[in-house]
Amino acid sequence: MRLFSKAQIVASLDPEVALRCLEQGFIAFSAGKAQVPPVQGFAFPGANGDCCIKSAYIEGSATFTVKLSTGFYDNPGKGLPSNDGLMLVLSAHTGQPLALLHDEGWLTGMRTALAGRIAARLLAPPRVSAIGILGTGMQARMQLEQLGAITDCRQVMVWGRQDSELAAYRAFARALGYEVRITHDAAEVAAAANLIVCTTPSRQPLLLSEWVRPGTHITAVGADAPGKQELDPALVARADRIIVDSVAQCSQYGEVAHALSSGQIDTKQLIELGTLLASGAHGREHAAQITLADLTGVAVQDAQISSCALAAMTA
Amino acid sequence: MRLFSKAQIVASLDPEVALRCLEQGFIAFSAGKAQVPPVQGFAFPGANGDCCIKSAYIEGSATFTVKLSTGFYDNPGKGLPSNDGLMLVLSAHTGQPLALLHDEGWLTGMRTALAGRIAARLLAPPRVSAIGILGTGMQARMQLEQLGAITDCRQVMVWGRQDSELAAYRAFARALGYEVRITHDAAEVAAAANLIVCTTPSRQPLLLSEWVRPGTHITAVGADAPGKQELDPALVARADRIIVDSVAQCSQYGEVAHALSSGQIDTKQLIELGTLLASGAHGREHAAQITLADLTGVAVQDAQISSCALAAMTA
Repeated sequence: MRLFSKAQIVASLDPEVALRCLEQGFIAFSAGKAQVPPVQGFAFPGANGDCCIKSAYIEGSATFTVKLSTGFYDNPGKGLPSNDGLMLVLSAHTGQPLALLHDEGWLTGMRTALAGRIAARLLAPPRVSAIGILGTGMQARMQLEQLGAITDCRQVMVWGRQDSELAAYRAFARALGYEVRITHDAAEVAAAANLIVCTTPSRQPLLLSEWVRPGTHITAVGADAPGKQELDPALVARADRIIVDSVAQCSQYGEVAHALSSGQIDTKQLIELGTLLASGAHGREHAAQITLADLTGVAVQDAQISSCALAAMTA
Repeated sequence: MRLFSKAQIVASLDPEVALRCLEQGFIAFSAGKAQVPPVQGFAFPGANGDCCIKSAYIEGSATFTVKLSTGFYDNPGKGLPSNDGLMLVLSAHTGQPLALLHDEGWLTGMRTALAGRIAARLLAPPRVSAIGILGTGMQARMQLEQLGAITDCRQVMVWGRQDSELAAYRAFARALGYEVRITHDAAEVAAAANLIVCTTPSRQPLLLSEWVRPGTHITAVGADAPGKQELDPALVARADRIIVDSVAQCSQYGEVAHALSSGQIDTKQLIELGTLLASGAHGREHAAQITLADLTGVAVQDAQISSCALAAMTA
């Protein structure tokens, strides 16, 4: 078994190759051609931490993957990052462990950002006035990096709570070639942007329905566990098209779950990203539609990006 | 993160220390002081393989463990062992991965054998006429090694299907100081032995109730997944005391599940090993009782033995 570091993984992964792998993974998942056992979760209340274990095998693949993600939110006070993670890649032919990718959560960030890019490619309005980003963390950065590939728009408005974080994000986005506006008021984001990505661990709605203009696409990636929520359920209900990574998982948590449990939407309205990809259709049907992609994160993404990363490092 | 090989683990683990760790693990589990998420399972029918992922955290522990076990039964034809496995140990304070123990399944074998020893200590008859072993594989060997610590009996009768395997087991057991008889007839085992350990992956009963004498203790460890069965359900129903590692898990599979589903026993008859250990009582109440320990394997064992092994290697 080989051990690879985050630095090795970052240096080797080709996002364009990974993107195609992810698309195939979503398609296989929605076609029922993947084994995705139940997620394992731990809570460590004394350490303000949690861990989740997601595993997947896509039929016909040479490998399968077990991923561990941890979030220990008091770590920064100890000089450690809050998040860590690794992926184990095993042979689907012999069961042998092939590699441990100690990516420290980077591959999870990348597969989430690439899923956001896939959703935006299928759902963003034809003319993006500005990109809106809620959140200033790693995922807020990775999403912006990926969106550069699907739109020429180089205007971004970012919402955050901390001035220091907003200033750091501004510097980051300027370096990517964006004109950047920063705000503490999410309504301003909705007024300026019609391609909005929500990346926060919020537990209450940040983006209200009344602020959002027709023709806006919203990708929400923050609500990856029960209790988390970034969107007003009324906004979910108002969306003309609702794309989810997994109907089953988004019925349990994520933005869609809140609107489902309050009866504001019906499961029949949900379209899986893999189904949309397989159809070859564009997700947005006309310019005035409000579209939503609720991406809670599925293990087939981990299986695909880890196998892709391993292939790049052992080529 | 540190990587340890099977050789390093085998050289470092003290079974006596591990035994006490396991006892504490069973006690914590039965007291509801462990987080044990659902087992993740994969099937690879094209490769005649499977994989399961078991994880556990015992409250108050400094670490938690994620274990992968694989069984790919065509591997011997490729010059590879059928079974492989590893355990990941992470900090319960920071979430950081501390160590990968690539034990190739050895720690699982050891924790299973040590659980058999714990059960036999609590349940074996006062005078063991002979030890009976069903099966000739690794677990059949590890169980016999461990039973030497709880009885002076050095008579063993082993049942197997293959003459070559029986001959190899005989050589192994003789080297441990046993007088060894071998047989293809499990009834002979029941006639000779009153401490019987069943270690096979059988999918049909091998040991019939009518063969088993009063005063016999039986430990069954082979039925660790749905569909597997080594004991006649009538024998389970006849047992005066039924000890299980996990009531919940043994209600789903293992020997007890078959007798429960056919209505021959009731869940109320089941006593968890951790509950028995916590009570301080001896499991066997009189010499003529038939006792059964159905050990399907619980992730707290993996958590305890991996933390024990890691402590020994980093001391």
